[in-house]
Amino acid sequence: MTSTPLSSLTGPMFSTDAMRAVFSAEACVQGMLDFEAALAHAEAACGVIPASAAEPIAARCRQEHLNLPALGRAAASAGNLAIPLVKQLTADVAAHDKEAAKYVHWGATSQDAIDTGLVLQLRQALDLIDQDLRRLGDALAALAQAHRDTTMIGRTWMQHALPATFGLKAAGWLDGVQRHQERFSALRARVLALQFGGAAGTLASLGGEGLRVAQALADRLQLALPAMPWHTQRDRIAEVAAIAGMLTGSLGKMARDVSLLMQTDVAEASEPAAQGRGGSSTMPHKRNPVACAAALTAAARVPGLVATVLSGMVQEHERALGGWQAEWDSLPEILQLTAGALAQMADTMAGLSVDAARMRANVDITHGLVMAEAVTLALGARMGRMEAHKLVEAACRRAVADGLDLKDALGREPALKDIIAAGDLDRLLDPAQYLGQAAAFTDRVLARQSSHAADNKER
Amino acid sequence: MTSTPLSSLTGPMFSTDAMRAVFSAEACVQGMLDFEAALAHAEAACGVIPASAAEPIAARCRQEHLNLPALGRAAASAGNLAIPLVKQLTADVAAHDKEAAKYVHWGATSQDAIDTGLVLQLRQALDLIDQDLRRLGDALAALAQAHRDTTMIGRTWMQHALPATFGLKAAGWLDGVQRHQERFSALRARVLALQFGGAAGTLASLGGEGLRVAQALADRLQLALPAMPWHTQRDRIAEVAAIAGMLTGSLGKMARDVSLLMQTDVAEASEPAAQGRGGSSTMPHKRNPVACAAALTAAARVPGLVATVLSGMVQEHERALGGWQAEWDSLPEILQLTAGALAQMADTMAGLSVDAARMRANVDITHGLVMAEAVTLALGARMGRMEAHKLVEAACRRAVADGLDLKDALGREPALKDIIAAGDLDRLLDPAQYLGQAAAFTDRVLARQSSHAADNKER
Amino acid sequence: MTSTPLSSLTGPMFSTDAMRAVFSAEACVQGMLDFEAALAHAEAACGVIPASAAEPIAARCRQEHLNLPALGRAAASAGNLAIPLVKQLTADVAAHDKEAAKYVHWGATSQDAIDTGLVLQLRQALDLIDQDLRRLGDALAALAQAHRDTTMIGRTWMQHALPATFGLKAAGWLDGVQRHQERFSALRARVLALQFGGAAGTLASLGGEGLRVAQALADRLQLALPAMPWHTQRDRIAEVAAIAGMLTGSLGKMARDVSLLMQTDVAEASEPAAQGRGGSSTMPHKRNPVACAAALTAAARVPGLVATVLSGMVQEHERALGGWQAEWDSLPEILQLTAGALAQMADTMAGLSVDAARMRANVDITHGLVMAEAVTLALGARMGRMEAHKLVEAACRRAVADGLDLKDALGREPALKDIIAAGDLDRLLDPAQYLGQAAAFTDRVLARQSSHAADNKER
Amino acid sequence: MTSTPLSSLTGPMFSTDAMRAVFSAEACVQGMLDFEAALAHAEAACGVIPASAAEPIAARCRQEHLNLPALGRAAASAGNLAIPLVKQLTADVAAHDKEAAKYVHWGATSQDAIDTGLVLQLRQALDLIDQDLRRLGDALAALAQAHRDTTMIGRTWMQHALPATFGLKAAGWLDGVQRHQERFSALRARVLALQFGGAAGTLASLGGEGLRVAQALADRLQLALPAMPWHTQRDRIAEVAAIAGMLTGSLGKMARDVSLLMQTDVAEASEPAAQGRGGSSTMPHKRNPVACAAALTAAARVPGLVATVLSGMVQEHERALGGWQAEWDSLPEILQLTAGALAQMADTMAGLSVDAARMRANVDITHGLVMAEAVTLALGARMGRMEAHKLVEAACRRAVADGLDLKDALGREPALKDIIAAGDLDRLLDPAQYLGQAAAFTDRVLARQSSHAADNKER
Repeated sequence: MTSTPLSSLTGPMFSTDAMRAVFSAEACVQGMLDFEAALAHAEAACGVIPASAAEPIAARCRQEHLNLPALGRAAASAGNLAIPLVKQLTADVAAHDKEAAKYVHWGATSQDAIDTGLVLQLRQALDLIDQDLRRLGDALAALAQAHRDTTMIGRTWMQHALPATFGLKAAGWLDGVQRHQERFSALRARVLALQFGGAAGTLASLGGEGLRVAQALADRLQLALPAMPWHTQRDRIAEVAAIAGMLTGSLGKMARDVSLLMQTDVAEASEPAAQGRGGSSTMPHKRNPVACAAALTAAARVPGLVATVLSGMVQEHERALGGWQAEWDSLPEILQLTAGALAQMADTMAGLSVDAARMRANVDITHGLVMAEAVTLALGARMGRMEAHKLVEAACRRAVADGLDLKDALGREPALKDIIAAGDLDRLLDPAQYLGQAAAFTDRVLARQSSHAADNKER
Repeated sequence: MTSTPLSSLTGPMFSTDAMRAVFSAEACVQGMLDFEAALAHAEAACGVIPASAAEPIAARCRQEHLNLPALGRAAASAGNLAIPLVKQLTADVAAHDKEAAKYVHWGATSQDAIDTGLVLQLRQALDLIDQDLRRLGDALAALAQAHRDTTMIGRTWMQHALPATFGLKAAGWLDGVQRHQERFSALRARVLALQFGGAAGTLASLGGEGLRVAQALADRLQLALPAMPWHTQRDRIAEVAAIAGMLTGSLGKMARDVSLLMQTDVAEASEPAAQGRGGSSTMPHKRNPVACAAALTAAARVPGLVATVLSGMVQEHERALGGWQAEWDSLPEILQLTAGALAQMADTMAGLSVDAARMRANVDITHGLVMAEAVTLALGARMGRMEAHKLVEAACRRAVADGLDLKDALGREPALKDIIAAGDLDRLLDPAQYLGQAAAFTDRVLARQSSHAADNKER
Repeated sequence: MTSTPLSSLTGPMFSTDAMRAVFSAEACVQGMLDFEAALAHAEAACGVIPASAAEPIAARCRQEHLNLPALGRAAASAGNLAIPLVKQLTADVAAHDKEAAKYVHWGATSQDAIDTGLVLQLRQALDLIDQDLRRLGDALAALAQAHRDTTMIGRTWMQHALPATFGLKAAGWLDGVQRHQERFSALRARVLALQFGGAAGTLASLGGEGLRVAQALADRLQLALPAMPWHTQRDRIAEVAAIAGMLTGSLGKMARDVSLLMQTDVAEASEPAAQGRGGSSTMPHKRNPVACAAALTAAARVPGLVATVLSGMVQEHERALGGWQAEWDSLPEILQLTAGALAQMADTMAGLSVDAARMRANVDITHGLVMAEAVTLALGARMGRMEAHKLVEAACRRAVADGLDLKDALGREPALKDIIAAGDLDRLLDPAQYLGQAAAFTDRVLARQSSHAADNKER
Repeated sequence: MTSTPLSSLTGPMFSTDAMRAVFSAEACVQGMLDFEAALAHAEAACGVIPASAAEPIAARCRQEHLNLPALGRAAASAGNLAIPLVKQLTADVAAHDKEAAKYVHWGATSQDAIDTGLVLQLRQALDLIDQDLRRLGDALAALAQAHRDTTMIGRTWMQHALPATFGLKAAGWLDGVQRHQERFSALRARVLALQFGGAAGTLASLGGEGLRVAQALADRLQLALPAMPWHTQRDRIAEVAAIAGMLTGSLGKMARDVSLLMQTDVAEASEPAAQGRGGSSTMPHKRNPVACAAALTAAARVPGLVATVLSGMVQEHERALGGWQAEWDSLPEILQLTAGALAQMADTMAGLSVDAARMRANVDITHGLVMAEAVTLALGARMGRMEAHKLVEAACRRAVADGLDLKDALGREPALKDIIAAGDLDRLLDPAQYLGQAAAFTDRVLARQSSHAADNKER
């Protein structure tokens, strides 16, 4: 039996094809090869290796030319992927140009290739995340705009609290997305940095040419040249992990909210329906929140992986024993899960089916009791705060005891008759009249979204 | 570019081929199919489905007959692997026997197949772990026996403390292994249990035959029939994760110790040398602790994965939204990493190269100061405890100040001349004479190992 | 401003008074002092220290005699609590008996006192957990019994699935509790073990008497004498953490379920009401699930703490640098959180307010669609499975399209008229007739509970 | 027995007094009271409550006026600290001014007080961290400068690799610190934001004045007014946790390095000695790395706590059940541990005792083999690369086999005689001549430090 990793089956549930490609075995190898190719060119340009060696090396730096399964097996003895990769590459170059083969990986250490290759993958990963963050932001902005005035019940402790709007809820989701965009944007300057230090981080094997080669290499790869190599200073990597972790947490929050709204008992919103999606042949009434489940799964898995990367930061001297290696699978998993959750929520929000009528109807489940605060405050202005409080409290007690609507219970209070007309009472009890700054808050977030969008266009 | 999971490359570094096979995509699918085959047979035997349906269904329950990539893609919409698996299987059975196809997966729910399939995989995984635990235990027992009296320095806070033996260190590693064997043994009764409850855990679709079918199915699969289905009671799964996590922690401790002993500066023990293993072409003196690195990586990664499984236990009602799905990749990763670390340490300990002479020499690095306590206690018996303490303290100060061996510094104390002969002093300063119960403790652990071994033979 | 730890405020929300006392500063110190007192007695009994020294030492081994704030401050320089504790104790003993003071902590190392003290605290902690596990088990058994036949909807993916019973849900919770009781019971033999090895784990400072003293000390403290000291083999401690973590996960699952049932929109069960508990003055309709929140908080916090303990297992040589120290606050936090969640759930389940009528009413929210499977199976027996399926599917479509109950939609199917009487149809659509093995499963769990209870009585 | 939290004892080991004060029970309560005082003033200024009510309320907003133990107990029923705090405060205000007491906490919700109080604490915490980051940066810059040319061995996989400098190692630590300063600086704009939304996040109870009051309140507290309330959008909080987690990881890396250098077997650097610090009375040669142990403990504990905060981000609707509450103790623990590790490393680096002679001596442990690469490269220029490689390889083999220094082994190679003078050979084998860009990298980091320092002065 061939033995294929489980994630080939589970991957499509929890990630996107694009992000899985970025962190595939092939792309991992190609990242290292891109480093090797650029290194040869940079060293040739600086006169460190013969000019004639660069192209023959670079020409073979395609993962298709390597034997990946053999590479994985050899890594088990070598301790990392770069050692057998350099061996395979050298042999392959030698088959075409024996002289050039002498200069493969010249002056570099395994970790230079592995880390820089990873950074190149991360650049693609950050682009993918940016795209879907924009997509999600647009979808949320549209929801917030469309439901700016859609009344629904606000729920605290999973209990009905006071009226709010669905627009405000969407704006809350969006508000977090905007901050995540800032964070991912700021991250690039720190993380997209070359790794190049040689065996002990001194570039000693390049003699006096180390820095010049490093700069040429960074330029070629369009990466920043850091102040110094960072083989065992892993805050750059940890920051990617952590910020992805924060985003996944926010996505999990959206998924939790949507799945709660989608309960059969609540039915206020649901994931977009799609052929064969979340259905059940024997239970015709069911529509499972498949996208929410995926996002919640990511939100459950990523924190532990972030903790792994953080605790792996405690690395020994100039090359770590365990802490670095713990990143190799963990960081790709984090980004794949994040991308999956992000895409699921972008799709969900873009196609969210919102039942505004049911939202409005559910506000009344407590028979008006959620309006008690509103009535008390309104009456207080007319009859004194203490009196109002006493009166409303009595009405609430009566409503609960006799199974009445608060309106009917208030109607039976003789003291109220003189103060307020029936029509006025209806208005006081109208949830739509007790929404405070919901629309204003929504507008503030939407305004920020417009300026974000303008920024994006300018770029 | 085809997109192969990264773990196809990294897997050989961090796991064993055998355990990777147990948790491969193929084995995962086969686990579910084994459930479906046994279900058909059990239901036929109980008269719930036609007797003629069982064999045609069971005959197709081979993963080779399914299209795994399609299954993975379909799972993304369906929300789990079992739904498209049942579809593919049903179509495949129908192609051979249309009538039988109606009875595929009869009365079961997706999670019944997924969980029972997992339990079947876990049974194999536990067998593999047991084997390597025995192998590791044997290797450690041999080390403890061989080095029962090999003096080395005990190190606390990574500082030289007092003399001890390498046998005691090996016995300490072994002592933990013995408890892990107990835990894994006790675990089986709880975890190797059938999952079978149908859509809501009631087996309602089997009418009155539910329990009978469940018993027949459990018998067929040689699993325990639990008191009731456990779809959202995940303590069984969490226990596997947690106990594997404990073992990995102990293996990480061994790896940390070996890697510290293997430092160029210490050089008391090292991983077995092997062709192409841990070497460096440009640094001829280096032998990298590749096995230790792998075990330390596992010890860094597993705790976060265990935390994921534990936090995933908070599952909703009769089928979870995120918590269960978070197990799917995490549990296999835990067991693969555990198996890898275990095999690496079993190999390392079986071939550990121990430099007893260097161990003995390193005891003397502090020029005898590590024997101060021993001398004080021995002299105390002859000259009074207070006097002895004062005298040794003075000698220690002199030794440090003048760069002397403690022996020479003591030799210069006139008060000592009358009390002790030079030969006696040598004995007092001999680390091998100050090992307390090191051998006795080692023997106690070895005795328990013998009785374990006897138990294993009886089975 | 005096600076009191925050947990003095938050503790009552998340733990019990009893468990907080077990892991208080005072109890931590007392644990170490209990070790020191027993050590003096054991060594006197073995003739290692003068018989006259034991009682004067033991007499001062009360935490009230020590200056705890000074101890905390001194520990910052010393690196652990035992070093300044031994100093304070020695000075205090000396003030009463100068000779005896020489024998305080004789032959022991700091970790001996710290670990054995912790084990003594753990014994109390395990007793407390056992008590509340029994209390919780009793409450759940009573719920399972009382609601053995209370029909409610089974929910999967947070969607209505098929009918089930509240008794089965309670039995599911109970089923997990029973396994946790087994685990905690098995744990004791491993964890309640003496720690005693001296500075390097050899007991060298006790000459040949080490093992005899160790046995006497273990006897005195009623702890097991382990095969050897376990200073850096932390699987015992990790097991406590992990098993507490599993229990907390199961408690979080209960809390999640109860809080979902307690939603204003569902209202099927709620935490017991109590004066000033979970209420809101301005929102008269609210009753916040305060106990569930506490248990869910514990379930959110404990996994990360367990991960800390697991990753801390990678300890260096004979005394660790970080891994051991990471346990000091983490393990007490785990057990305090576990105890808090356990007590909250025991109280909640003992006083749970169950609205069986609402449970029954909520089954009908989907207008009978949840009974589609039941009807199909039942009709299949009379009219052929294919026919039945087609007929019911058509009726479901009509029900959804026309907003009908499934019963009415079925009533309009002419094909059904000849086959089934109206009364029969009612029975087919009765959720209480489609509960499968719900009662049988419940009874199986309750039977195990009875035998558990019998076992407990015998002890 | 009174029951004091354990952290009153362990706190001094793992945190600073200043940070413990910031997150003490008293400071937590004061933070909420600062919110309440500012709220009263802001609402009075906006005409929402009587002008006469503000001062009487604000005057009582001192934690000394409250009964903290009673508050903790009441919180257990109420579910949070703010509810009983408002009750106590109201009663206290009423005792002085009955009318004013009516306006305590007007229009706010518990979480407004709790979160804003926390943000006020965080501002102080960030100031403390900034101070110690500067202190640590200065100490590291001094080390990097002083040891810019101090040769030591570079260690990879905990094996001797190639020569490097201690200045480069210090520069590597510093390089990370500089990035952490950037991150903490960028964080402030996001996290120092008011929380103010009322019961459902709409400020409905303030009628149309909500936003004006919010702005006035933010101004008064010198906090940013966010676009909208963020009760269940917790990325701000998660970011604090995560960035503190990254810093702690970097600090753990420093501690790991120092503790490895401080091993008795290596002895290249050690923590500053201090009276009673890390010593052992019975082992005169020992100096325990107490500060490293504390930092490593923090690095072991913080990742799990960060994971808790990240997984707690999945919060329900408008107020969470578990996720938010999980932050309450976790975030203060993270910041206290971070501050402790930071102070320990700042102290350690400021007083680090560096043994440059021992560093140089240890380079020679491998008898020159670490210079093999250097010699090969240098000879290659004169005799051809292939020849050089063959020659050096042979010499290395001979050196290992015969126990020679590489120099002697090379001296015996006849081919070398003609090419190189003995004096030249010495230079080729001089580690100080093979340091590549070590000094240049160090200078680059130091240059950035100077510009940082200039920036700080300008502020």
